Amino acid sequence: MKQKKLQEYKNGENATLFLLLTKIEKKTAKNGNEFLNLELRDISSTISAKMWNGFESFYPDAKENMIVKVDCKFDEYNGTPQLIINRIRAAKEADKVTYEDFLPRSQRNFEEMKEEWEKTVESINNSFLKLLLQKLFDEETKEKYFNVPAGKAWHHSYLHGLLEHTLEIVKICETVCKIRSELNRDLLITAAIMHDFGKTEELNYKTNFDYTDKGKLIGHIVIAAMRINEKTNEIPDFPESLKDRLIHLVLSHQGKLEHASPVIPKMPEAVVLYHADELSAKSNAYLNVITKEKQNGGNWTSFVRLAETSLYIPPEDETDTPKETFFD
Amino acid sequence: MKQKKLQEYKNGENATLFLLLTKIEKKTAKNGNEFLNLELRDISSTISAKMWNGFESFYPDAKENMIVKVDCKFDEYNGTPQLIINRIRAAKEADKVTYEDFLPRSQRNFEEMKEEWEKTVESINNSFLKLLLQKLFDEETKEKYFNVPAGKAWHHSYLHGLLEHTLEIVKICETVCKIRSELNRDLLITAAIMHDFGKTEELNYKTNFDYTDKGKLIGHIVIAAMRINEKTNEIPDFPESLKDRLIHLVLSHQGKLEHASPVIPKMPEAVVLYHADELSAKSNAYLNVITKEKQNGGNWTSFVRLAETSLYIPPEDETDTPKETFFD
Amino acid sequence: MKQKKLQEYKNGENATLFLLLTKIEKKTAKNGNEFLNLELRDISSTISAKMWNGFESFYPDAKENMIVKVDCKFDEYNGTPQLIINRIRAAKEADKVTYEDFLPRSQRNFEEMKEEWEKTVESINNSFLKLLLQKLFDEETKEKYFNVPAGKAWHHSYLHGLLEHTLEIVKICETVCKIRSELNRDLLITAAIMHDFGKTEELNYKTNFDYTDKGKLIGHIVIAAMRINEKTNEIPDFPESLKDRLIHLVLSHQGKLEHASPVIPKMPEAVVLYHADELSAKSNAYLNVITKEKQNGGNWTSFVRLAETSLYIPPEDETDTPKETFFD
Amino acid sequence: MKQKKLQEYKNGENATLFLLLTKIEKKTAKNGNEFLNLELRDISSTISAKMWNGFESFYPDAKENMIVKVDCKFDEYNGTPQLIINRIRAAKEADKVTYEDFLPRSQRNFEEMKEEWEKTVESINNSFLKLLLQKLFDEETKEKYFNVPAGKAWHHSYLHGLLEHTLEIVKICETVCKIRSELNRDLLITAAIMHDFGKTEELNYKTNFDYTDKGKLIGHIVIAAMRINEKTNEIPDFPESLKDRLIHLVLSHQGKLEHASPVIPKMPEAVVLYHADELSAKSNAYLNVITKEKQNGGNWTSFVRLAETSLYIPPEDETDTPKETFFD
Amino acid sequence: MKQKKLQEYKNGENATLFLLLTKIEKKTAKNGNEFLNLELRDISSTISAKMWNGFESFYPDAKENMIVKVDCKFDEYNGTPQLIINRIRAAKEADKVTYEDFLPRSQRNFEEMKEEWEKTVESINNSFLKLLLQKLFDEETKEKYFNVPAGKAWHHSYLHGLLEHTLEIVKICETVCKIRSELNRDLLITAAIMHDFGKTEELNYKTNFDYTDKGKLIGHIVIAAMRINEKTNEIPDFPESLKDRLIHLVLSHQGKLEHASPVIPKMPEAVVLYHADELSAKSNAYLNVITKEKQNGGNWTSFVRLAETSLYIPPEDETDTPKETFFD
Amino acid sequence: MKQKKLQEYKNGENATLFLLLTKIEKKTAKNGNEFLNLELRDISSTISAKMWNGFESFYPDAKENMIVKVDCKFDEYNGTPQLIINRIRAAKEADKVTYEDFLPRSQRNFEEMKEEWEKTVESINNSFLKLLLQKLFDEETKEKYFNVPAGKAWHHSYLHGLLEHTLEIVKICETVCKIRSELNRDLLITAAIMHDFGKTEELNYKTNFDYTDKGKLIGHIVIAAMRINEKTNEIPDFPESLKDRLIHLVLSHQGKLEHASPVIPKMPEAVVLYHADELSAKSNAYLNVITKEKQNGGNWTSFVRLAETSLYIPPEDETDTPKETFFD
Repeated sequence: MKQKKLQEYKNGENATLFLLLTKIEKKTAKNGNEFLNLELRDISSTISAKMWNGFESFYPDAKENMIVKVDCKFDEYNGTPQLIINRIRAAKEADKVTYEDFLPRSQRNFEEMKEEWEKTVESINNSFLKLLLQKLFDEETKEKYFNVPAGKAWHHSYLHGLLEHTLEIVKICETVCKIRSELNRDLLITAAIMHDFGKTEELNYKTNFDYTDKGKLIGHIVIAAMRINEKTNEIPDFPESLKDRLIHLVLSHQGKLEHASPVIPKMPEAVVLYHADELSAKSNAYLNVITKEKQNGGNWTSFVRLAETSLYIPPEDETDTPKETFFD
Repeated sequence: MKQKKLQEYKNGENATLFLLLTKIEKKTAKNGNEFLNLELRDISSTISAKMWNGFESFYPDAKENMIVKVDCKFDEYNGTPQLIINRIRAAKEADKVTYEDFLPRSQRNFEEMKEEWEKTVESINNSFLKLLLQKLFDEETKEKYFNVPAGKAWHHSYLHGLLEHTLEIVKICETVCKIRSELNRDLLITAAIMHDFGKTEELNYKTNFDYTDKGKLIGHIVIAAMRINEKTNEIPDFPESLKDRLIHLVLSHQGKLEHASPVIPKMPEAVVLYHADELSAKSNAYLNVITKEKQNGGNWTSFVRLAETSLYIPPEDETDTPKETFFD
Repeated sequence: MKQKKLQEYKNGENATLFLLLTKIEKKTAKNGNEFLNLELRDISSTISAKMWNGFESFYPDAKENMIVKVDCKFDEYNGTPQLIINRIRAAKEADKVTYEDFLPRSQRNFEEMKEEWEKTVESINNSFLKLLLQKLFDEETKEKYFNVPAGKAWHHSYLHGLLEHTLEIVKICETVCKIRSELNRDLLITAAIMHDFGKTEELNYKTNFDYTDKGKLIGHIVIAAMRINEKTNEIPDFPESLKDRLIHLVLSHQGKLEHASPVIPKMPEAVVLYHADELSAKSNAYLNVITKEKQNGGNWTSFVRLAETSLYIPPEDETDTPKETFFD
Repeated sequence: MKQKKLQEYKNGENATLFLLLTKIEKKTAKNGNEFLNLELRDISSTISAKMWNGFESFYPDAKENMIVKVDCKFDEYNGTPQLIINRIRAAKEADKVTYEDFLPRSQRNFEEMKEEWEKTVESINNSFLKLLLQKLFDEETKEKYFNVPAGKAWHHSYLHGLLEHTLEIVKICETVCKIRSELNRDLLITAAIMHDFGKTEELNYKTNFDYTDKGKLIGHIVIAAMRINEKTNEIPDFPESLKDRLIHLVLSHQGKLEHASPVIPKMPEAVVLYHADELSAKSNAYLNVITKEKQNGGNWTSFVRLAETSLYIPPEDETDTPKETFFD
Repeated sequence: MKQKKLQEYKNGENATLFLLLTKIEKKTAKNGNEFLNLELRDISSTISAKMWNGFESFYPDAKENMIVKVDCKFDEYNGTPQLIINRIRAAKEADKVTYEDFLPRSQRNFEEMKEEWEKTVESINNSFLKLLLQKLFDEETKEKYFNVPAGKAWHHSYLHGLLEHTLEIVKICETVCKIRSELNRDLLITAAIMHDFGKTEELNYKTNFDYTDKGKLIGHIVIAAMRINEKTNEIPDFPESLKDRLIHLVLSHQGKLEHASPVIPKMPEAVVLYHADELSAKSNAYLNVITKEKQNGGNWTSFVRLAETSLYIPPEDETDTPKETFFD
Repeated sequence: MKQKKLQEYKNGENATLFLLLTKIEKKTAKNGNEFLNLELRDISSTISAKMWNGFESFYPDAKENMIVKVDCKFDEYNGTPQLIINRIRAAKEADKVTYEDFLPRSQRNFEEMKEEWEKTVESINNSFLKLLLQKLFDEETKEKYFNVPAGKAWHHSYLHGLLEHTLEIVKICETVCKIRSELNRDLLITAAIMHDFGKTEELNYKTNFDYTDKGKLIGHIVIAAMRINEKTNEIPDFPESLKDRLIHLVLSHQGKLEHASPVIPKMPEAVVLYHADELSAKSNAYLNVITKEKQNGGNWTSFVRLAETSLYIPPEDETDTPKETFFD
């Protein structure tokens, strides 16, 4: 689906757009007339909307998370853009729009990432670990794993986010393995691939990003442990100690009990995985916040709960050359 | 095996005894002669020992956790009993002694406990849950589950300890279910039975009570989750939500992330299981400490790390009758 | 007082009702006219209200927490019920309505609970402890103790709540005493009865549930200790150690310093009381939240601050019978 | 009792001394002979001792914390002084020695401190508070209050220590009252006097400094609250709010729940009392450690658990005059 | 600048006033007309305002934190005062109004405080420390130091606040030095003067009180350390140990790592400075909150985040004389 | 200096060796004879020693941390090697031995590391930052920086350890910069170089590794900030914001206030530096512990305080080839 982004329209323009309906409520105005208050999104942003008339046939079947087609005019309310909707209907199959048209996705090239991931699996030398990965990643599982975001909101929270995040951790782990050759590289890389595998079951990402009941009751960490356990059971003679260590790395990858890891890192590989995960996650998250809030002006973002601070947005026009003549 | 307890011998007595060898080291005296420094235990207590001569053939094959037969004399060193060993040899099969002769065991009747446990399983009405328990507890598993202690040292740390502990939790949960009929009793009782199931793999208890490598790397909580996952996979149409909830109760039964539960209780049944576990564990542990230290005299036990305090030992001879004549 | 519950009226119905006025403010509409914005409650729920005219004589003497009689019409505003009030006046003595008509109360039978409580006191064998309870609970004190809620909002937060809560703890303690006969049952049950005694002074519950100044400055835990101290002073030869232990159990019943207990449990009975209290409180609180939010739909309640999570509302229509034929 | 201090004797000197016996055990030497291993103290320090012969009649009745008279010789063992005892017997009444001869005491003049304390009480203008103090401090209570140390080991841990500590807090509070005239000075000073009153029951100090059972079970904070409660009950019309506030200040004076205060400071006077207490306690404690360890050499004391660090001992010979000529 | 305070005007009065513009936004009314929504302050309080017409020439250049002259009428909206503005313009130099006319300031006499501060510096006997202070406080620095508030909102958050706060700490430290003569008084007083020196760079206070970028990135504690380091570098032979100790006192004055001190107090002087700072800060802060909220009625302030509680406002009319006749 | 390592000698061999004397005490044997108890080290390990005769002229001038030359025989005591010393004297200048002969050092090639470091500095494009580094690292400073260990005991605790550690962080940061091109690479790399710069003043490493007084009073974090501040002052027009950010990265590199960082990371570069530091430090520390304890046998190291656990030592002989024929 190709259409101009919401952000690119100006006040007063008319448009016909496919949008994702994320909120809808009927309200009564002071004059007693009913109207609709809506929230809609395209892939880039979210916008409020009002519909004053003609929603009688649409409203009864309207649901959050449905895709709609609207005739509308761009307006402004107290300095914020809003839409005035003239006509609205649910999208049809023939419209050929899908939820993916409305969900943010990784900015890295998807094919390139898949290829990088396949090469990583290929590079595992330990036959048991490589076999385990091959068994775990059947086509259906790969499909989910390659598409799911790494989280709902904090870091890599977009389609293919888990894939992008995993590849970053792999790169950092490879760097550390070069520095410390004593590390069991195959074990570490396999654990890096598997560490957030449980997110394929912990998160819904088809129409919106949200936690599943299973995700809230069990959590992605134990889900991954159960899947590794199931598959190693199918591999004859899979070494018990190797299995325990791999599960240990997955279980301990959040580093501390209070971060919901049921065991803390008890191996060098485990502590490496923990901090490599932090590096990938936090650098992504912090930069995302700054990118999003940069245009608001000001030197500081709003308070970021998971960083426990607001973040500094440095001035851009910094002179780079000292005045003194030391270099002459 | 029947023999007088170590505690019942007096200074100066001679004896022939089977004992468990828990420590052994060869030392050199000031005069240059070598001697053995040993630690031995029977079912009731531990004692130090010295052997001055005649250990040349025994020593090279001696290992910790082996059962030995000794000829010895009860002696004292600085007010503490010790043994002087004249002869020592490893126990033979013909001696018909086993490790269980040297390990403490629950004071409750074992048969009675097993029967109580079977009745509890029988009482589960939900067919899926009952079936799950029946599949999980094959004869081999039951054997382990019925014998393993509930821990290495803190509470119910004796043979059949897990069984005793589980039955206490079941009783407390039944009481709470009577108070709050909205609770899902079948789910709660099944989770009570399963909550420490992982200890069958987390602990060694054959020759001594100690953690296994798997226990330290994965922990009994996740082990239990993996076993429930495996077995429910074998039951057609086991309801996904029921499975998730059962695993949730097991995972959250230590109540807090910092106590190594990867999720906190998110259901009334989960919070009941947590505190019923605490009640059984702590009342057992606190009373054990007092029983053990009572004979030392004094009103306070030594500092108990897990209670974060020493415990008060109340005076026994308390008058019970007020002097005033209110009752006349 | 008998009247139809607020929840049972429909949009458009007229009614004359006694209600508790919990908030009142005069506002000015855009057109310059003044109107009243009110909040009212009956025993089951709270409702917003507007009064457009005729409040001149009522308003100057109106106070929060007064009982009023209203003529009104049931209306709706943005999907939420509200009242339009035509006439309002303060309730008079002749109306024979009291605050208790508007405050929630325990669903257990009050007489039954009182009897159960009396039997519990009667069952104490230690004469000193029994005498202490008899002295503490004169008629006036009993009146308060039997009526006060166990808290403002969290658990058993309704009339007779403390009584209901106390009886639950007693039951759980009795179960544990059966499991561990070494426990001092009389001491434990007396402490269970007294543990929240201070709430009779910590809470106002006549017109609304709220903390008193004394409650905030001293807290129910120390209040109870002071009352026990006063009364034991009146009993000749009350054993000093018994008194100290009873006060210890009361002081330590919140289990941890950071939960406002000035000492942590240093006796087995103290740790049992702590967890029995938790069992009663949390099972009540968690189930209350679920009951209240169940009708909203969805599988999860809103975030519950004291549980540090939202709670899972399981599906009701769970199939109970496995398909396989294991039982044949 | 007057006698030369242990620290003033030299290796090889003979002496006859009264000492406090703090530890005693009979041991067996390698040669099979029994001997006594003892620890003794005078008011300034503690010393080890050995007795090789002639203790047969003494040993059976010897107890820790008894005062003894010894004939001995000063010796050294691995560079540390020790006594070789030739004769020993329990002190008799006729010897006119008391435990106070062996316990450390405040370096401030006792009479001066008592006078200062009486003047402080006299200076209270609020008649209720002054009357309360007069009733609380009968002669017997004063005797205890004036003698008890403020603690077992940390700060002001010597006879009259509570008195000295209290007077320091009073001084600091007076300074703050001058800075902030809005503070209720009478309430604050009364609370300062009462804040550690419970230590008269929490601590034994007659033969050694140690906690009582009541002290461990209830704690000095609640003991003080109970005593204030008892006495205000005896004063007609003692204002309820004044009583609650006074008890609040005492209960909250340790500042945080985790420091065993059951309520945190909710009044300006309460927060002032908390920090004035800290100032007096910590400045005393830190300086004591430095004084004690200064002579060991080195710039740092050993690790001080309650300060969570070792303390710096600054160099003494610091030059005070800058070289530059700014002042000319 | 002299003008009647905002609080002294009544509903309906007209006035011409200089005010500080703290917020401004243009809004659109339901009828489509634009109007201004403003927030303005004088030295005593803040008020909302509306301007319906005639702001076309003013609005484009209006900025937050500019001083304006307004013609206005006092009005009320829902019981809260507001201004209706008829004319507005930016203040001119000729108006001779400055930001200081709109910022709160210490209630103590400024000249007196400066004199007290100079005497304190003069009283330092250690020549190095006195010289350091003289070098640090050139005229420009003194100007800032004497004017800056001690914080944005919590304590002494008004002009000259740092000066007032510092003098209070000095007084408390002098009291403690009298109690404990072993303390290094010169070092302690110098550190007291320097402890919050960094606030001169951490805070903006010219037009409003707010943190600078440097303040957020580095913090006043390390800023002060860097300034002391710079200036001691300029003093020949400044003793290294003295410098390290002075910096240590400044770095550790917040007492705990989690309060952003990079080292904890490791000297008696450091722990005294920490608690003296707390005493001055908290007594000021708590009393400020009570003063501000007293007029709202009620016995409790709203929740005070930094005190972790709401504060008690005691009744004023307390009887002071007991009824009993003890004094006769 | 070249000599055979202590570890390479066998029981009974004679040797003449230079060793570092790390402990010395004179003791008295049971027979009344005095002897010396010593601890000595070469570069690889530490050994106990006894000297029975002939130490009269040596002992009075002996000091810990002096280098000695010994004539000795290798012996064993209870299975542990010890030396019996026949002759001993202090090393002389002519012996040409230095402390570095006895201190552990990095296993990486020193020249290679220096070159790598120089290239890193060279690679900084921002002229201000490069100039700053050039000014900071004069020859004397470089000498220290290149030699100092990164810590006393935990990680990289050997000569050149800071250099090795810094280069690892640089490598990890470069990897992350490749992943996230928005990062300010020059700032991050400069901060990586400077982050532990303060250790050059915090640690003594000439004769042993230990903290200086300055190190304990101020800490390496603030020391580095002061040095950066001094040097940027010397560079005309060094951008204030750049300086603040660089200091911010250094101050926040321990990530949390409770880890002694006075500010937490408020920039993406700061959070990257924190975790890169953790990765280098922990992987080094964990692997060191395992390497050291591997030879003791057993699957677990002893408890590692900073890791809050003991570490798993995996079995070495792991089979790598699955039996099944999936790959055919």
